[in-house]
Amino acid sequence: MIETPYLLFLGDAPDPLAAKVAQGIKDWRPDNCVGQFRMSGCKADMNLPDMTLEEAKAAGAKTLVIGVANRGGKISAAWKEVLIDALDQGFDLASGLHNLLRNETDLTEKAAATGRALHDVRIPEVEYPIANGEKRRGKRVLAVGTDCSIGKMYTALALDRDMKEAGLKSSFRATGQTGILITGEGVPLDAVVADFMAGAVEWLTPDNDDDHWDVIEGQGSLFHVSYSGVTLALIHGGQPDALVLCHEPTRTHMRGLPGYALPSLEALRDMALELARVPNPGCQVIGVSVNTAALDDGEAEAYLRQVEDRMGLPAVDPYRHGTAPLVEALKAM
Amino acid sequence: MIETPYLLFLGDAPDPLAAKVAQGIKDWRPDNCVGQFRMSGCKADMNLPDMTLEEAKAAGAKTLVIGVANRGGKISAAWKEVLIDALDQGFDLASGLHNLLRNETDLTEKAAATGRALHDVRIPEVEYPIANGEKRRGKRVLAVGTDCSIGKMYTALALDRDMKEAGLKSSFRATGQTGILITGEGVPLDAVVADFMAGAVEWLTPDNDDDHWDVIEGQGSLFHVSYSGVTLALIHGGQPDALVLCHEPTRTHMRGLPGYALPSLEALRDMALELARVPNPGCQVIGVSVNTAALDDGEAEAYLRQVEDRMGLPAVDPYRHGTAPLVEALKAM
Repeated sequence: MIETPYLLFLGDAPDPLAAKVAQGIKDWRPDNCVGQFRMSGCKADMNLPDMTLEEAKAAGAKTLVIGVANRGGKISAAWKEVLIDALDQGFDLASGLHNLLRNETDLTEKAAATGRALHDVRIPEVEYPIANGEKRRGKRVLAVGTDCSIGKMYTALALDRDMKEAGLKSSFRATGQTGILITGEGVPLDAVVADFMAGAVEWLTPDNDDDHWDVIEGQGSLFHVSYSGVTLALIHGGQPDALVLCHEPTRTHMRGLPGYALPSLEALRDMALELARVPNPGCQVIGVSVNTAALDDGEAEAYLRQVEDRMGLPAVDPYRHGTAPLVEALKAM
Repeated sequence: MIETPYLLFLGDAPDPLAAKVAQGIKDWRPDNCVGQFRMSGCKADMNLPDMTLEEAKAAGAKTLVIGVANRGGKISAAWKEVLIDALDQGFDLASGLHNLLRNETDLTEKAAATGRALHDVRIPEVEYPIANGEKRRGKRVLAVGTDCSIGKMYTALALDRDMKEAGLKSSFRATGQTGILITGEGVPLDAVVADFMAGAVEWLTPDNDDDHWDVIEGQGSLFHVSYSGVTLALIHGGQPDALVLCHEPTRTHMRGLPGYALPSLEALRDMALELARVPNPGCQVIGVSVNTAALDDGEAEAYLRQVEDRMGLPAVDPYRHGTAPLVEALKAM
């Protein structure tokens, strides 16, 4: 668990896209952000107050979160200076970088000396159990996709936000590094050892109030041959009551797999539902979430209506329209 | 890769079942075994020559394989004496024990001093790639089961043996610890990190001659919620041309999951085939392998004929009858 609130480290981001982790935190958990720390040449801006480490500390920040991708896969000397200074001033550090904080000797020595924590969210910090398949109290909804990187995290975060606004009890359950940094906790499922994947998802979504919803972040796709095993562990460990199908209508092949066509929404519905009913015979598909970023307003509207007619399910773009029809469907369950 | 041939270490096995790893090696790769090493009180016997370390060395043995489960999860002082002596005499050590050889300081020091290898087959020794889904040359057959521990390894080993006897080119591809010790190589799939599972299976079953068959050892079950992700990684990484369905007809619930009924063979066939056709649209289910150990001869025969009638596929118990009808079906592909 990463202590909040955060100071967002944007470093020397060469463009806004490089700071997309910081953007995610700012968009979804603005209350977790007291300010941003930018170095000279930084081309990203979260519209948060620019703060020195001292100012952020005074404003209550507990953790400096690296919200930017590093260039060339190494932590530069200029970054290092800030990170060490932050440890000296009592900040924990959190990072989703491929190269780990814990592999930098100067950082581990400083963290030990100051008693601060280094959170590498790519690496599990828990010994997860093997899944036992026992039915848990509370309700769960999972986003599954026709492909990877198709909007499952965005859908889950929007659903969680809209459910809370509608007065439902809900928790976003992060299963990837960006989601973990946004919420401060979760399971980095792609880094968990095979035998413990489903158990990690059970651990992440424990017994809860009967009217509480876990909104579980999806990973991969049942139809993506590189990562499908991770997806199935989410379905079987999460034992969802409800599934949301995620899709992007202009994609020409599975991400990173040029020879592989995307499945239809119908194929995803049938496959995911049959597998989800192994641990939870009552599971239902309650709607479709479409990333229509590549379509204009009229095309997006037409596509969503066509999906609704075809599938007999509400279809939304959560970015354009929010997820109200999905929330209604969950409320009715 | 573990160097063969082996001296099988049976230790102080309290009963024959404790030495089932040694039994597997002896049954399936007798040519890999020059002899057995038994301590006083050993109740297991592979019907191999009893040898001292010196005798086994003289007979050409390269590796001392721990073919017996240890009591209480620790390597006893009596075992340790033999293992250290073996390293001194030039043997490598191989083990599938939960507690690792590499965590025993006296063994690592002795191995370093003597230049010998310690093989813990529960732990991957390779950095596997992420699966790329590219079509590989050669053919592959995979055993999938209605449950875990239902005879998938036995089926694959029997199929590999019978295919070779029928003059086909075939390689058994181990994905679990016993299989790895039997063949001296493979992937301990349940210990691979999630993102690399399918890539590990691709690595295990690379391009080969067009008329060569990889016979891939299955793991888990698509319907077993604890391990289903591992099974799907095998299906998508292995891109099998042929599937064999494995079943045990008297089991009352999924192994370790009292609330979960076994799926029908029909449900397994349909689910496994649809998923296998993602990487390999030509994949076929070619037969059923039934573990009939709990049935008498007449019951077994009746059950197999009933399955054949129902499924329109050859059904065999590989232990009772061999796998000839399955080999015929593979030959015809």
